[in-house]
Amino acid sequence: MSDLSKYFDYNATTPMSATAREIWNEASEQLWHNPSSLYREAGYAKQRLDDAREDLADLLGVDAPERVVFTSGATEANNAIVRYFSRSKRGKLAFSAIEHPCVEASVSEFCETGGTFEIPVDPGSGVVDLDALESGLRSGGLSAVSIMAANNETGVLQPWREVAALCREQEIPFHSDAAQWIGKMPLEGLGECDWITGSGHKFGGGKGVGFLMMPEEGGEDFHAAVGGPQEEGRRAGTENLPAILAMVGALEEMSGLDFGKERAEGRDRFEARVKEELGIQIIGESAPRLWNTSMILLPREKNLKWLTRLSGLGFAVSTGSACSAGKGNPSRVMAAMGLDFDEMGRVLRLSGGWESTPENWDALAGALVSVGAEL
Amino acid sequence: MSDLSKYFDYNATTPMSATAREIWNEASEQLWHNPSSLYREAGYAKQRLDDAREDLADLLGVDAPERVVFTSGATEANNAIVRYFSRSKRGKLAFSAIEHPCVEASVSEFCETGGTFEIPVDPGSGVVDLDALESGLRSGGLSAVSIMAANNETGVLQPWREVAALCREQEIPFHSDAAQWIGKMPLEGLGECDWITGSGHKFGGGKGVGFLMMPEEGGEDFHAAVGGPQEEGRRAGTENLPAILAMVGALEEMSGLDFGKERAEGRDRFEARVKEELGIQIIGESAPRLWNTSMILLPREKNLKWLTRLSGLGFAVSTGSACSAGKGNPSRVMAAMGLDFDEMGRVLRLSGGWESTPENWDALAGALVSVGAEL
Repeated sequence: MSDLSKYFDYNATTPMSATAREIWNEASEQLWHNPSSLYREAGYAKQRLDDAREDLADLLGVDAPERVVFTSGATEANNAIVRYFSRSKRGKLAFSAIEHPCVEASVSEFCETGGTFEIPVDPGSGVVDLDALESGLRSGGLSAVSIMAANNETGVLQPWREVAALCREQEIPFHSDAAQWIGKMPLEGLGECDWITGSGHKFGGGKGVGFLMMPEEGGEDFHAAVGGPQEEGRRAGTENLPAILAMVGALEEMSGLDFGKERAEGRDRFEARVKEELGIQIIGESAPRLWNTSMILLPREKNLKWLTRLSGLGFAVSTGSACSAGKGNPSRVMAAMGLDFDEMGRVLRLSGGWESTPENWDALAGALVSVGAEL
Repeated sequence: MSDLSKYFDYNATTPMSATAREIWNEASEQLWHNPSSLYREAGYAKQRLDDAREDLADLLGVDAPERVVFTSGATEANNAIVRYFSRSKRGKLAFSAIEHPCVEASVSEFCETGGTFEIPVDPGSGVVDLDALESGLRSGGLSAVSIMAANNETGVLQPWREVAALCREQEIPFHSDAAQWIGKMPLEGLGECDWITGSGHKFGGGKGVGFLMMPEEGGEDFHAAVGGPQEEGRRAGTENLPAILAMVGALEEMSGLDFGKERAEGRDRFEARVKEELGIQIIGESAPRLWNTSMILLPREKNLKWLTRLSGLGFAVSTGSACSAGKGNPSRVMAAMGLDFDEMGRVLRLSGGWESTPENWDALAGALVSVGAEL
């Protein structure tokens, strides 16, 4: 394992937890049989798969384990859910201006021109504009709503509980991409969303595995892949049982943690120092945010210069979401928050993990200050 | 690891090879960074991903590594390829009557009524009817052709080399689902198909990972998932590097084996004995077949009865493809080979592995004979 004390890109990916790796190894040796086969060992694998589904449903506060569909990750889940929504003839699909690229690209891919309704965010806080959503809902022209739980770039928490309630009132299906929320925040209440997306590698659960939660009723004909009858026909393909068990094990581990205010101590101390010493601006500072994330606006020079020098000092940070890093694409999130082109080239995302200590954040602040002195 | 000497369901899934597991563990500890990120460790992960792509291209005899796209498995790949084909306005998609359910279901899902052309197989041998394909191709009404390399139920090898040549002549894209071929047969020539599908867990490479190979030119706008720019935009989602490296490592290992006639010795001895002692019929016997597979027609009683008793003796076998096992769906493959409903309920698929010895097959024959004596 490389040095995690200088790793500040947990929103891009996380190392697999020791527990998850242990579970994976055991399952890979003992539970590799095809759960769809009919002999003894396969039946045991099937049983363990069903147990994992129940455990995950319990964690999400969901009574019906069959609402859980295991996938290869959040991108697969979000692609499939948006594609499913796009088939509705009921009205437009509403999605926020700060959704992850895999939601936004799905909307472009699957929805007809004019078939969507983009919900803006408040530029200052980065929180979705509930009034805009409400008037969209009241107009009666929406078929579904997709709003993430926590933003991957800014860490800004979105009012998904309120959105879920509003959608329920209007009987409109609500999807929340909770890939950045799950594992970092309490899971309580997530089960009240109709659709949820989760990603294993965002919380130490391993790559190539994720899940979605669908409604108990009303998701007829939904499927993320067609072929075999796995996952009750909602996701064909041989189940990746070792990865599924590892992911659920990691989530059990993470969700037992305390996510109180003190968890943000290091990040907050970091922000106070870089604001004071470098005149750095914190994006979304006024909003409630994930305890691990800090999206900063550097005072000068391109973010890549800072990133490279920080990397030279052993620190891993990001210019934005890993999905758009280095591609020179302006971030939709930053655009929605009113940054101009020059500013977009000066943002840096720092995202710590469960083990990051306040001292680790102090060291990062020190490194930024020393890079700032050079640039 | 459970007792592999009695495991005869390798076509459903295989245990991960020790080499692959070792690679996975090392990568999971050392190479967990997001290859799309921009710091040092991420760059190293990206480099290893590119190396794996080159290694796989080399194994497939392909000059252009960018033809390789890593996926979560064969189902994802086949779904995406058929969906891509279905968008062509050029003509009908031709596919064989014995394709895997994930190809057949994709055809139903994505192709318009009347937009497909089903290529029959010779009922005796289970080999696709090349004459039928040729006349389809000559008619000029085809947009693409999809024919698997080796059948998952019977093990019957399909004339994919000839099909590739015919399609090339007519400039029609050709896809071969080679999930059952790869790892069990020489890879030579596969690169000449425009599109190829492979699945890690069919050759000891691990679950939840696979790949597709696409043409160097002519696959514009193809994607298996949308969102981030991973895999050159052809498959969004954080790369599952540990699984990818493990899969490629396993394939390197398997493809170094000798796939000469002697590898079928155990299976052949098994078939000779059960034919003689139980009057069992071998399905597709007259055709060239995978060395590991035997699809048999039992003389009496439902296959499930045999399977259950064999399971009691510790043997793992299948009533057909794991994807349809136990669901009571008649097999399309068996229907295409002319079996009636009663006969379909009496088939049993036995598929050995790389370590299965002739003595293991002898023991299986003995077990079948003793179950036969009871039933």
